[in-house]
Amino acid sequence: MKKKTPSRRNILSLGAGLAALSACSTKPAATAPSMVGKPLSPSGAPSPFEKAARLVPESKTPATGGSRAPLQDLYGTITPSSLHFERHHSGVPEIDPTKHELLLHGLVEQPLLYNVDDLKRFPSAARVHFVECSGNGASEYTAPGGTAQLSHGLASCSEWTGVPVRLLLHEAKLKPEAKWAIAEGADACKLTRSIPLEKLMDDARIVYAQNGEPIRPEQGYPMRLLLPGWEGNSNIKWLRRLFVAAEPSMTTHETAFYTDLQPDGKARQFSFELEAKSVITRPSGGQKLPGAGNYEITGLAWSGRGKISRVEVSIDNGKTWKDAELQGGATKAFTRFRLPWAWDGSPVSLQSRCTDDTGYLQPSADELLAVRGRNFRYHNNQVKTWFVKGDGSVSNEA
Amino acid sequence: MKKKTPSRRNILSLGAGLAALSACSTKPAATAPSMVGKPLSPSGAPSPFEKAARLVPESKTPATGGSRAPLQDLYGTITPSSLHFERHHSGVPEIDPTKHELLLHGLVEQPLLYNVDDLKRFPSAARVHFVECSGNGASEYTAPGGTAQLSHGLASCSEWTGVPVRLLLHEAKLKPEAKWAIAEGADACKLTRSIPLEKLMDDARIVYAQNGEPIRPEQGYPMRLLLPGWEGNSNIKWLRRLFVAAEPSMTTHETAFYTDLQPDGKARQFSFELEAKSVITRPSGGQKLPGAGNYEITGLAWSGRGKISRVEVSIDNGKTWKDAELQGGATKAFTRFRLPWAWDGSPVSLQSRCTDDTGYLQPSADELLAVRGRNFRYHNNQVKTWFVKGDGSVSNEA
Repeated sequence: MKKKTPSRRNILSLGAGLAALSACSTKPAATAPSMVGKPLSPSGAPSPFEKAARLVPESKTPATGGSRAPLQDLYGTITPSSLHFERHHSGVPEIDPTKHELLLHGLVEQPLLYNVDDLKRFPSAARVHFVECSGNGASEYTAPGGTAQLSHGLASCSEWTGVPVRLLLHEAKLKPEAKWAIAEGADACKLTRSIPLEKLMDDARIVYAQNGEPIRPEQGYPMRLLLPGWEGNSNIKWLRRLFVAAEPSMTTHETAFYTDLQPDGKARQFSFELEAKSVITRPSGGQKLPGAGNYEITGLAWSGRGKISRVEVSIDNGKTWKDAELQGGATKAFTRFRLPWAWDGSPVSLQSRCTDDTGYLQPSADELLAVRGRNFRYHNNQVKTWFVKGDGSVSNEA
Repeated sequence: MKKKTPSRRNILSLGAGLAALSACSTKPAATAPSMVGKPLSPSGAPSPFEKAARLVPESKTPATGGSRAPLQDLYGTITPSSLHFERHHSGVPEIDPTKHELLLHGLVEQPLLYNVDDLKRFPSAARVHFVECSGNGASEYTAPGGTAQLSHGLASCSEWTGVPVRLLLHEAKLKPEAKWAIAEGADACKLTRSIPLEKLMDDARIVYAQNGEPIRPEQGYPMRLLLPGWEGNSNIKWLRRLFVAAEPSMTTHETAFYTDLQPDGKARQFSFELEAKSVITRPSGGQKLPGAGNYEITGLAWSGRGKISRVEVSIDNGKTWKDAELQGGATKAFTRFRLPWAWDGSPVSLQSRCTDDTGYLQPSADELLAVRGRNFRYHNNQVKTWFVKGDGSVSNEA
């Protein structure tokens, strides 16, 4: 009358590529409670048995910095809004939406002013996109993160609803010399980035909703600039101003920060587009496999250039690769990849690498170093390696 | 220095099908705060300025009944998990996942027992699907709901992650006489439904995650049966047992309830599949338009048979129809539809009707009555009408 440990039988009978496990018992299922449960409620919350949370670093200035999404505890492609990573420079302002307006001015024929109710009257679009801080993985070369949350948790993915920026620019009528727009947030530091008009006329949107509800305060309530596939910092939160100009403004966050120091000592600037990246989230660092047997290897892949067309997984330190199954996979969005895996109990390394629909292949750490040199910090998209020990523990160290 | 009301200019210049509004001002945007905002946090919450909530009816037995999702306040296609509709028969049990197991037994060669960690080792899938109570819209014929929440709020849509039931049945090895499985929940009433094996071998899954996180308690934590496109009641929550049998069990919830009394006095039983339905969520009952001008008409459409292929909108009580733009639109999932609309300030009626990829067209109230008669209650998918008055108020009454 006891439960058997998962076995490896029936792998082949499930068909190519499918692994399975089985357990056998004559024991009845857990007894259902005899007491009536909790009543209907206006709003729900996760089970008290679930503890997944953003990782908030200890800091004397807790309004500045980043909290990381618990990727190893998440499923599918949507990041719960409550657990979407944060990166703030002056904390989260509490904004009354009836008092917040977006000013569109500068090199336009007609300055415009919109509140969130005005925006909702325009044709909107709902699209799934990731947002990623360009500093995600910044320390992977020097100090690889011990969990997926530490190594890759500055990325999240939501269904965003909002208005194409080009509709607003069209209303304002751009002057011929217009080439950039300076986007400014309503946080205390008035975070400001210069955005090329090409992007604003392409897939950029002012979004007011996230995963079905009004955008969360940490993500820019009541409105943020969403630049699909571009580094998070340029997706200005609490957006209050788009100032159309002929030149970029060379603000702090595009000169002192968010530039890439190259091997020749020069800095690459306005490197907005995020290159293809992937990470295995299960099994991943900090988790422990209960023993040899069948598992699913799963993780996330994304590219700022378009769709993920392929994810490969290696269990032999990159010598051989197997194609994983892809799920989700909207453009510039998280793609969930999955591969059945029969673990024989011996120590192995696990890696994933992805290819996007431009043909770009995610580089190994060595390949990236060869191009970028040792000065680089932002935009690190190197292949991540997890090591499974004989006891089933998973770590970033061999 | 004041903001103009939205105008109708530039409609044509935005291209076919696009409407726009504009506001003009030389006033700067709202002043940003000078104080640093709130710090990073382990988990976020909606803005305190947002009040959307499930509608919980007054009841002496608040653990039995339904709470409705605020569709008129939602965006895109995903329903926030906190606001997903509820329908409980004995309240929400609080289940320790380490003590919960699913027993698969009956007409199988090998009885099996799985906890949620076992399930996660199988090949999983993440898919977006709606869930709808078959009683959604039950009173629309006799007492049309005054808001989208009242009329259609017993439907919601999530990204669900879980294991195909066919993989588990394959492990258990079905006996030749197996035709049904009796699914039982771990709530106090042990809610039980008989499910044809054809569905379980098709797209049915045991899901353990919803919108990126573990499934919420109100939706069946730690695991529920998900039968894409089939009435909510059959998607057994807190799933503890699948008993494979040759015949259905004729349980309370498939005999006394959830059957459709036909005009001839006979009841239609096991009418699982939900037919195509749509509702305009903005403008909708209870909302008020600030005045004539340009708006977006938007709403949701879904079908238990597959994808939504078309949504048409009428502003003249069904005399003429215009095709709306579709967004989202996975199979058996919410599709968001949108149509620009220039309101001239006169009273109008607003209706939507959808067609799914089987060619089925959502019926009018009269068409449905002609087929089903006046006894029917469940599975009401009639076209919903909103009336916009001259003062901009929107109601279910002309």
